Amino acid sequence: MSCSSSSSSNPPCAACKFLRRKCLPGCIFGPYFPPEDPQKFSNVHKIFGASNVSKLLNEIEAHQREDAVNSLAYEAEARMKDPVYGCVGAISVLQRQVIRLQKELDATNADLMRYANANYGVYNNNTTWNNNPNPLPDDDIH
Amino acid sequence: MSCSSSSSSNPPCAACKFLRRKCLPGCIFGPYFPPEDPQKFSNVHKIFGASNVSKLLNEIEAHQREDAVNSLAYEAEARMKDPVYGCVGAISVLQRQVIRLQKELDATNADLMRYANANYGVYNNNTTWNNNPNPLPDDDIH
Repeated sequence: MSCSSSSSSNPPCAACKFLRRKCLPGCIFGPYFPPEDPQKFSNVHKIFGASNVSKLLNEIEAHQREDAVNSLAYEAEARMKDPVYGCVGAISVLQRQVIRLQKELDATNADLMRYANANYGVYNNNTTWNNNPNPLPDDDIH
Repeated sequence: MSCSSSSSSNPPCAACKFLRRKCLPGCIFGPYFPPEDPQKFSNVHKIFGASNVSKLLNEIEAHQREDAVNSLAYEAEARMKDPVYGCVGAISVLQRQVIRLQKELDATNADLMRYANANYGVYNNNTTWNNNPNPLPDDDIH
């Protein structure tokens, strides 16, 4: 819903209501800050400031503004919850998770290689070797 | 280096220099925005605004301010590089990486289970079964 389409009986967007100003047609905030979600603008305003957000929205293309506002709202909410680290805290957690998973994957792949090598020996000794140096178990070995 | 320890011959901190104001003893920005890194304050100011940063720093404990400034500087730089997604773009990339690694790990674990089950059959038939339902290959099986 856009402020530009508001009739005089429609409420102003959440930004204009918060800033106590008239919501004029073509309001830059209107399409992204509906009146039913006042917290979204209040967070973004507290962390970035309405003027910075307005400048940023004017510097990017219209079709990217919704994504921009949503990412700003995400960052703002994260900063309200964690004033020290904000969403950079989430980045640290995810980075540690990636490192842990990569280590686990490497270890599991190493185990798999040991099985493959062990099976190579078992199958080779049992003369079931069929030119595949790393035979994978399938239904017919059982 | 803190503004509070600056003598009159020392340069003001990067924030006070940028804002063209006198860097007084106890300046909230001083310890975190050294004059030799003007870009750090300029980014943070452009994205969050000096007033919001000052408010945020005053609301948290002194020992956490350096981490807070560094996370704000990280967010600000990410937003300058990517005005639409900022550091939320990095979060999306990391989240996809975690999902991909978890899937790879699950698949590798499933392969490992197949080997373990196949080996169980092989070892069981060869009467080398030793009460371990999932024997891992080790040096003495070779």
